[in-house]
Amino acid sequence: MSDTPLTLDEQELARIDAWWRAANYLTVGQIYLQANPLLHDPLQIEHIKPRLLGHWGTSPGLNLIYAHLNRMIRKRDLDMLYLAGPGHGGPALLANVWLEGSYSEHFPEITRDADGMLKLFRQFSTPGGVPSHVSVPTPGSIHEGGELGYVLMHAFGAVFDNPNLIATAVVGDGEAETAPLEGSWKGIRFLNPERDGAVLPILHLNGYKIAGPTVLGRQSNTTLTRLFEGHGYAPRFVTGDDPALVHQALAAALEEALDEIAAIQRKAREEGLDQLPVWPMIVLRTPKGWTGPEIVDGKPVEGTFRAHQVPLAGLSNHPEHLQQLARWMASYQPEHLFDEAGQPTPDILALAPEGERRMGSPLYANGGRLSTPLRIRELDLYALPLNADQRARHRHESTRVLGTLLRDLYRDNPDNFRLFCPDETNSNRLGAVFEASDRCLVARTHPDDDHVSPQGRVMEVLSEHNCHGWLEGYLLTGRHGLFASYEAFTTIVDSMATQHAKWLEHACRVPWRAPIPSLNYLLTSTCWRNDHNGFSHQGPGFIDGLLTKQPAVVRIYLPPDANCLLSVAEHCLKSVNYLNAIVIDKQPQLQYLNLEEAREHCAHGAGIWEWASNCGDEEPDIVMACAGDIPTQETLAAVDLLRDYLPELKIRVVNVVDLMILPTPAQHPHGIRESCFLSLFTASRPVLFAFHGYPGVVHQLLHGRPGAERFHVRGYLEEGTTTTPFDMVVLNRISRLHLCLDVLRYVPGNLKRSAGLIDYLETQLARHHDYIREHFDDLPEIRDWVWSNHPPVNKS
Amino acid sequence: MSDTPLTLDEQELARIDAWWRAANYLTVGQIYLQANPLLHDPLQIEHIKPRLLGHWGTSPGLNLIYAHLNRMIRKRDLDMLYLAGPGHGGPALLANVWLEGSYSEHFPEITRDADGMLKLFRQFSTPGGVPSHVSVPTPGSIHEGGELGYVLMHAFGAVFDNPNLIATAVVGDGEAETAPLEGSWKGIRFLNPERDGAVLPILHLNGYKIAGPTVLGRQSNTTLTRLFEGHGYAPRFVTGDDPALVHQALAAALEEALDEIAAIQRKAREEGLDQLPVWPMIVLRTPKGWTGPEIVDGKPVEGTFRAHQVPLAGLSNHPEHLQQLARWMASYQPEHLFDEAGQPTPDILALAPEGERRMGSPLYANGGRLSTPLRIRELDLYALPLNADQRARHRHESTRVLGTLLRDLYRDNPDNFRLFCPDETNSNRLGAVFEASDRCLVARTHPDDDHVSPQGRVMEVLSEHNCHGWLEGYLLTGRHGLFASYEAFTTIVDSMATQHAKWLEHACRVPWRAPIPSLNYLLTSTCWRNDHNGFSHQGPGFIDGLLTKQPAVVRIYLPPDANCLLSVAEHCLKSVNYLNAIVIDKQPQLQYLNLEEAREHCAHGAGIWEWASNCGDEEPDIVMACAGDIPTQETLAAVDLLRDYLPELKIRVVNVVDLMILPTPAQHPHGIRESCFLSLFTASRPVLFAFHGYPGVVHQLLHGRPGAERFHVRGYLEEGTTTTPFDMVVLNRISRLHLCLDVLRYVPGNLKRSAGLIDYLETQLARHHDYIREHFDDLPEIRDWVWSNHPPVNKS
Repeated sequence: MSDTPLTLDEQELARIDAWWRAANYLTVGQIYLQANPLLHDPLQIEHIKPRLLGHWGTSPGLNLIYAHLNRMIRKRDLDMLYLAGPGHGGPALLANVWLEGSYSEHFPEITRDADGMLKLFRQFSTPGGVPSHVSVPTPGSIHEGGELGYVLMHAFGAVFDNPNLIATAVVGDGEAETAPLEGSWKGIRFLNPERDGAVLPILHLNGYKIAGPTVLGRQSNTTLTRLFEGHGYAPRFVTGDDPALVHQALAAALEEALDEIAAIQRKAREEGLDQLPVWPMIVLRTPKGWTGPEIVDGKPVEGTFRAHQVPLAGLSNHPEHLQQLARWMASYQPEHLFDEAGQPTPDILALAPEGERRMGSPLYANGGRLSTPLRIRELDLYALPLNADQRARHRHESTRVLGTLLRDLYRDNPDNFRLFCPDETNSNRLGAVFEASDRCLVARTHPDDDHVSPQGRVMEVLSEHNCHGWLEGYLLTGRHGLFASYEAFTTIVDSMATQHAKWLEHACRVPWRAPIPSLNYLLTSTCWRNDHNGFSHQGPGFIDGLLTKQPAVVRIYLPPDANCLLSVAEHCLKSVNYLNAIVIDKQPQLQYLNLEEAREHCAHGAGIWEWASNCGDEEPDIVMACAGDIPTQETLAAVDLLRDYLPELKIRVVNVVDLMILPTPAQHPHGIRESCFLSLFTASRPVLFAFHGYPGVVHQLLHGRPGAERFHVRGYLEEGTTTTPFDMVVLNRISRLHLCLDVLRYVPGNLKRSAGLIDYLETQLARHHDYIREHFDDLPEIRDWVWSNHPPVNKS
Repeated sequence: MSDTPLTLDEQELARIDAWWRAANYLTVGQIYLQANPLLHDPLQIEHIKPRLLGHWGTSPGLNLIYAHLNRMIRKRDLDMLYLAGPGHGGPALLANVWLEGSYSEHFPEITRDADGMLKLFRQFSTPGGVPSHVSVPTPGSIHEGGELGYVLMHAFGAVFDNPNLIATAVVGDGEAETAPLEGSWKGIRFLNPERDGAVLPILHLNGYKIAGPTVLGRQSNTTLTRLFEGHGYAPRFVTGDDPALVHQALAAALEEALDEIAAIQRKAREEGLDQLPVWPMIVLRTPKGWTGPEIVDGKPVEGTFRAHQVPLAGLSNHPEHLQQLARWMASYQPEHLFDEAGQPTPDILALAPEGERRMGSPLYANGGRLSTPLRIRELDLYALPLNADQRARHRHESTRVLGTLLRDLYRDNPDNFRLFCPDETNSNRLGAVFEASDRCLVARTHPDDDHVSPQGRVMEVLSEHNCHGWLEGYLLTGRHGLFASYEAFTTIVDSMATQHAKWLEHACRVPWRAPIPSLNYLLTSTCWRNDHNGFSHQGPGFIDGLLTKQPAVVRIYLPPDANCLLSVAEHCLKSVNYLNAIVIDKQPQLQYLNLEEAREHCAHGAGIWEWASNCGDEEPDIVMACAGDIPTQETLAAVDLLRDYLPELKIRVVNVVDLMILPTPAQHPHGIRESCFLSLFTASRPVLFAFHGYPGVVHQLLHGRPGAERFHVRGYLEEGTTTTPFDMVVLNRISRLHLCLDVLRYVPGNLKRSAGLIDYLETQLARHHDYIREHFDDLPEIRDWVWSNHPPVNKS
């Protein structure tokens, strides 16, 4: 380290070191103390919390980085977000935002003095207090620690279309082993310095996870240099365990990195993006639990996995541990960091940036306050015209209609909306967006490429993880977006959806967090229409996962046609603080409602389709309910058959768009009143419910509704293969033929009258099975009969 | 390419090229033809399938690699698996295994002649036929295409403890963008050439995904070299579009790569692992859709994204496309590849390895045939002794008991069992395994490391994806294992579980696939006991995902104590073809049953706990059911209170271990007969069911059971934070206090008698809420009251 230039003068060095020691002291205090916060009295066991919880190991590194970033922000007047990947560094971030004053502004009862310091200590990892992770109530955070792997994705999402923002993302070397993290270094290939901000990754190698060494921690600097150069970065290494030397080296590395970022941005913004930028990053190698106890009970702790959580435990039974803790805390010299009243010294305070420049206070980290509504044109521009006599007669690719709306969102909200999709935008019939924007790729482009450029804002990467994580970062900083995915592969990000839902659930209870735009999913290429992709592509399970989230944040919509899709999409795009899932296939659907009807239908969430029913105001013999495009089609086709063969049978058709009308109002805010429920589904008649996803979804939603046992749900039964659309509904026993047979089963007394129908159904099913069984001896027949066996439904 | 050494002599070159052309021909045939397989007649529109489905783009590359691997296998007598990451190359793999004869041996009706060739063509991507992905019925495959990202993980899992096996894993450049794939290059850091086989990755860069260019495809060789050297590989590049040159270059690269693998293995096995190996890999850059149509309708196709699926479409309306197809197929010169009868020429056949050396026939790819049962010692060795009067009085860490069993599995099955865990083995109380084996890490080790060595077989990597993927590969090649995870983070691999379930569901219907050992999950560190980790770590949703799979393959167990855990674990470890989830926390549980009782209880899946009930043979007033450790504890504590305050109330306690006894036998093979169901839960009495996970799980399972509406389920309501265990059950309204209040609600007529109880419950709840609200003003009180408020249940 002898060649390290002296970036910091003595005063700067002293000030940064003082901040760092203060933050370390406050971190240790949070883990241990319930009294005597400034150690004005000799440390006694009664000053120690009854239960010691928290993570020391990663904290000194996080504190070090915070201190140094403060200096850079002041010096260069930067807008900076601090994303702490090592989520267990909660106490570190709390220490820093308390020091800079942000914490007391967000939580006035936690004052920046001895009294507030004690409260800060006592609330940490305590029932009713604050979690040990960086989390929703941590000012300045848009990234929850906990489930590891997403810090770079969130950072990239935050800086897209935020040209002045720098997101410093600290990546722990444990987190660096996760697949999502390894898959997210490539964010720079989608980051255009002309219009986007910058991400500065700091890989913090302290060598250990909970118990084992880390893969990257054990690699040489040479190997790491190759790896990150291969990812497109110019890594700089800062290594050491002597604070003064590390301070100088880190300060120098940050100066250089920020110089490089500024140069990349200046060049791109002045001259355009002619060369592909090589972005800076920093690898920081410092000991785990640095400045903590070196040896405890004869075993090394500092620099080992033993420093991960609470280095000194069992203090009531080990008085020597208590003494060691006292020495440890005293080593930071709190008497030089805080005045008698517990306020940080003016010298420390002088390192903190001002106002919203403080990393605990940027508006970017409370994106709802920055957010502006989307400009959405009148839906009439996109709607499919439809007369009553055209209902259920014509097919149209509904997502293609949505694509035109998305195209105009790009035109009208150029830096406030993005579509994220794993390379399926065209496949999902949303290609109209390319009339307004290209696919984004910051790389060499070829003449044969189709709408690809660094200027593009359509985010296509074959990684559901990146799509989801980027979108989260984009939303958390106040912008709008949509994640369009093959339905089955949305479950790849089940756990990311869970973590974002938990963020929103928690954020609703943090008063200063402004609502952020909703995370909107378009689930398409659904289980019913993966004709050649087959079984691996057939899975509607994302719905099941969403259902487990708190009702306050989850919405699930199954529009049956294009105009309903438009109405639902508009609603979702205008909403805040939800996860909205919209499920509809990309293949042509039958169209049922004009825009006005669709708006009303979607506003209610469900309704009786009088035009498909035959019972008028009378109580029906059976309610045929449906949710989803294919179930709606099969239900209407079944109704057609039933009306032909059994004209006396009174049928009511109920279509459900908003799945959350089904539970009771006590269970979900969209749950309809019992009187409405009865007016749709009657009090006691059988209900045959054709559902898009797994039947268990509807069964659990209906629990607590009158006569839930009379609901007979048909849906996806996890049967599938490479086959025809009609065979799929047959395999899963939700075909028009099966629905007719079910009606005969649940409405007794029709058997005699229905001999003709039964004969027809059995003939058709036998014919279908024969063709499927004999498929490749009779291909033309298959074409004629099976492929096309979704005739227009004959509605009048 | 002029410096390329001529690795292949003329005959070898001609033979490899002929194989390649034959495979390409058969690939095109599968996509297009329903007649005239050998083009003996001029191609007519009636020879063309009515619907064209399939993926051409990736196939020529897959065929090329197959041809060359054949040569290497023959030359070096290798055991090799071919894992095709680009799953859409289904027709390519089918072409090759048909050529080598494996296909006809697995599917005798698809003979290796013109008749079989036609059947091969017609069945492809056809209803009732075979999927367009490499899939379960593809001989030689252990890797389903479809959901991308797992090919390297599967390859590494396959070669662990298989020292003679080489798994060649072809990684598509689309797949290479997924996070799981990017996170799996590090498999070599866990691969010990002394005892494990080798993985040879071939990154196939054809430049495009479905529609967009790929990130890696657009990087220079210099950048790629750095990246893969950084990952620990020595990459070799094979680039070109001239077949003769590429053949020579690929042959040379394979020779070198296999030399290096052999050298690494020889050195490690003879001298030990003193140096860390640098493993070979190959980067193959060839055009997408190579040898297909160059230009269609004036637009470039070969080498662009337009070659992804079917390059020539709409043949009936475009006679020129039909002519172009005829020229394309003729360009392979089928008359020189197949004799009049359609059999491959002897020269082509001479390239195929023999018997099980053929990549369509290795036993490794049908691992059930290689599998030997685990040696498991008598459970008495591990069981907790427990007298009847000790029931529910003592706490013990049940997973620690399981750890001793796992330790002996390592001792008794050294190359037939591994534990996979994201760095939580000790944290999850399974640390006894380190008495038998170390953590595996092939890297420098430090003196302070705890049980870390390249010889270790405990697989700890902070990546749920790698843990799951490796275990899949290990199981699919016939070995046994367990994936232990924090419950909440198991959902990170929801979609991997889905894909493995689909594999098993499909495999059950493929007669030649032998059953493989089950995929066993231990879900621990559960939602109820993440005291300091808080809300982000609280999520039992993995159960909800499993429920959606076919009943034939899914089992979910909730053992309440250590002996039940032992019994369930033994059962799961001995089973085949299932996904078994075992859910139990790592914190000390109350212990209820001795081993004998536990075995009987678990064998039934559920039972009445007479010793906790007070109704003898009489019909109870209420059934208190429970599933899971904490719900069982709270139920028994509630019963205690009720018996104190309301001794006349007749209570039956039913504990459920096997969740799948709840559905009807028609819905799940474990579903108990209705008479058994009634004998547990009565026909009409209210049932208060305290459940470990989300209540909706139980509601959906009970659908169709008599009186399902009388089941009142309490479970995890997605409420949580950093708090005490008792506060968690209060927040989610499943505490003993809440359960008592529920009993009063559901068993009317007790109100008068129960004034004392109500008073007690309300006092306790108020006291709890006060403490939580005032937490940090009163920490010692919290310790005394809240933390310890799980007193032993007073059972006699």
